[in-house]
Amino acid sequence: MEIKHIAYFKNLIGAENVYDDKAHLIAYCYDATRARYEPDAVLFPRDESDVSEILKYCNEHRIIITPRGAGSGFTGGALPANGGIILAFEKHMNKILEIDMENMVAVVQPGVINMALQRAVEARGLFYPPDPASEEYSTIGGNVSENAGGMRAAKYGITKDYVMALRAVLPNGEIIRAGKRTIKDVAGYNIAGIIIASEGTLACITEITLKLIAKPKMAQTAMGVFPSVEAAMNAVYKTMAAGVTPVAMEFLDNLSINAVEKKFNKGLPKDAGAILITDVDGNSQEELTQQLDIIEEAFLENGCSGFKRATSPEESKNLWFARRNASQSITIYGSKKLNEDITVPRSKLPALLKAIGEIAQKYNVTVPCFGHTGDGNVHTNVMVDGSDPKQLEIGHHAIEEIFKATVALGGTLSGEHGIGLSKAPFMHLAFSEGEMELFRSVKKAFDPNNILNPAKMGL
Amino acid sequence: MEIKHIAYFKNLIGAENVYDDKAHLIAYCYDATRARYEPDAVLFPRDESDVSEILKYCNEHRIIITPRGAGSGFTGGALPANGGIILAFEKHMNKILEIDMENMVAVVQPGVINMALQRAVEARGLFYPPDPASEEYSTIGGNVSENAGGMRAAKYGITKDYVMALRAVLPNGEIIRAGKRTIKDVAGYNIAGIIIASEGTLACITEITLKLIAKPKMAQTAMGVFPSVEAAMNAVYKTMAAGVTPVAMEFLDNLSINAVEKKFNKGLPKDAGAILITDVDGNSQEELTQQLDIIEEAFLENGCSGFKRATSPEESKNLWFARRNASQSITIYGSKKLNEDITVPRSKLPALLKAIGEIAQKYNVTVPCFGHTGDGNVHTNVMVDGSDPKQLEIGHHAIEEIFKATVALGGTLSGEHGIGLSKAPFMHLAFSEGEMELFRSVKKAFDPNNILNPAKMGL
Repeated sequence: MEIKHIAYFKNLIGAENVYDDKAHLIAYCYDATRARYEPDAVLFPRDESDVSEILKYCNEHRIIITPRGAGSGFTGGALPANGGIILAFEKHMNKILEIDMENMVAVVQPGVINMALQRAVEARGLFYPPDPASEEYSTIGGNVSENAGGMRAAKYGITKDYVMALRAVLPNGEIIRAGKRTIKDVAGYNIAGIIIASEGTLACITEITLKLIAKPKMAQTAMGVFPSVEAAMNAVYKTMAAGVTPVAMEFLDNLSINAVEKKFNKGLPKDAGAILITDVDGNSQEELTQQLDIIEEAFLENGCSGFKRATSPEESKNLWFARRNASQSITIYGSKKLNEDITVPRSKLPALLKAIGEIAQKYNVTVPCFGHTGDGNVHTNVMVDGSDPKQLEIGHHAIEEIFKATVALGGTLSGEHGIGLSKAPFMHLAFSEGEMELFRSVKKAFDPNNILNPAKMGL
Repeated sequence: MEIKHIAYFKNLIGAENVYDDKAHLIAYCYDATRARYEPDAVLFPRDESDVSEILKYCNEHRIIITPRGAGSGFTGGALPANGGIILAFEKHMNKILEIDMENMVAVVQPGVINMALQRAVEARGLFYPPDPASEEYSTIGGNVSENAGGMRAAKYGITKDYVMALRAVLPNGEIIRAGKRTIKDVAGYNIAGIIIASEGTLACITEITLKLIAKPKMAQTAMGVFPSVEAAMNAVYKTMAAGVTPVAMEFLDNLSINAVEKKFNKGLPKDAGAILITDVDGNSQEELTQQLDIIEEAFLENGCSGFKRATSPEESKNLWFARRNASQSITIYGSKKLNEDITVPRSKLPALLKAIGEIAQKYNVTVPCFGHTGDGNVHTNVMVDGSDPKQLEIGHHAIEEIFKATVALGGTLSGEHGIGLSKAPFMHLAFSEGEMELFRSVKKAFDPNNILNPAKMGL
């Protein structure tokens, strides 16, 4: 990057808010993928006006910008794949601006950590449900840009269901407002709706207004053991059809159960086709009991054995043990885990797992699966020997076939992680050329010079 | 329109599906506004492929298209303001294609009547909550295009919260799919999200996949009388903060109460500042009682007198009488009602009603208000003598000031009805030139030749 640009930025936002030394550039070259790309500079805007001035200048000089929250994404959304500047919101634009009790709304800057928001609103008896696994470090700006999900999605929805309004800066420096602090607002196009999940390619988000709900007073855990994934899925269907939407309804397949058992020796049922672990919440014990009674009936009707209700926090933790430790346990099957967050309509989970089993057999790899039955989101893990390039290649072929099977079942390449760089090569599996062309037209409408996070999403 | 175009359409979809005689053109020139615009022809596509061929032809020949559901909109969205063809979905594309019990999803064509869908899914124990006042005749395609709300919005959200996926045709004839039958889907831009509420200006919707939920087993009504709107709003706030979200929480102001009382003599409290009527729902009587206990406490703490719970369907109907008859009763204040569906953040309702009172005084008009406190959506009615053009003009000035007050309080020009033609002149009150420019860029990305419902939304 030309030295005059760096000088301009230092003059604009202060030298202390511009990094261009090697050590810092390396510190901002990563995310949760294995890919590494160094930016030319890292800028820490102090406020929306800084963001506006920076974008305007970059647009005039065709300097590429990659917005960045915590850099914890799984698909490279925050990586400066083509150089240029990183716009980092962690240093200054990280404040909770308002918790509006009367309207049950929070207004935050993009750099606020998800869990910091959860804690702040829970201290006031309110609740912000989206809980991605990265909640302890990922930012709300990143959550909105990737449309993060989480464990509680089946009952409470995902990030987009909580975004009421945004302030954002367009590449030309124009500051726009989109949406309102109201449930109903049908004036103008739903610009907030398309900025969500756009992976920082359309505009830089500078302020987010989030819907909050009242915090449920209590929760309870239960678990059941099933002879097959089909039986477990029927139980899930019966539960939901009876009007009970659990907060979480997680499954482990036989391979995952055995991995946890081998590692921790907890007395898990090694012959089970699947186990389901569920949480219900509400405002009274009767409300919880009512839900668990319905769940128990649905489970028992579908071949469940060993139905257990936790009656203390310790018991609850115990029932959750297998699920919480699944991810680390499955490494017994291979040193390298190629994991994807594919999602299919709930009822297609058995068919998907069957297809995955066949693909595993074809490529002679082990593919343990676990995840969220309530919303059809499966964490599928192709386990290979990471030191063997041949095995890695085989693993990637298996992944591509799993993507194809997912799309054929009406599913999506990504339920939570986004496309970014990692899944860009697979976009053609899910979208027609006409659909991709529409994406490119939308991108151009917001960002005619293609300065905002280009080369992402396969555009 | 040139005769060759009519001939082309008749050949394409059959002469019986093309109207170009005067009587029929007049039959399709109206909606729920007073404006009248005749189309050049009315086309009834038989399927998505017809829609695609029609759009492609119209795009090549620059023929304007206005998609139309039931023509029941309040802002002119379905009016062919610049002539061209009406694309009417009522005749053929009006089928419920699928009710998927396992995934709790319905797939419908755009011409399905809202209430027909509600009835079909309720017969199977499922529930489609969006209930615009037009539910008996408006279509799902129209509901999605205008992002229709309804009484149950505070608890269950609005149309956009139930749209999981769309199929649609772009002006160039390209058929696109947007969204999936999954709660989580973060691959590609949220195209469905921006087609919703776009008033038929971006694409023609040909199929809609809707989320359903389990039908609550029972409901109960209650009512309270308050000394002021502020007191009533505090009671609403306390209710929601305690974790109770009523299905409906409707208010009538003093003018509306007195109008109903004058007309029907029901013994309503003529000195009350406001009354609140509320419905709660759930799966057991305990669940209803638990909610009503909390509501009663919140009401009594805020000066409520005469709290009543309905214990039978008749009592429930009785408590709802005032709200159901408010709209027709207020005509005692003037023969012509200029009504708008403005919406502010819930907590700003008292300030909005105060501002409306001052505007009413300034222009010497009566403005009774009633509506949805749960979501800040007020039906505000400027009552004038419809036979007096001077009064009409004064009324329109009052409306403009009410819009300004609404926007100043962080509210929106439209909570439910859309912008269309009627509110287009007021868009500059709510949006900056930069925001309008972005709307125009988005429009151009989808519809470069501006053939789809042009001149709507003030673009």
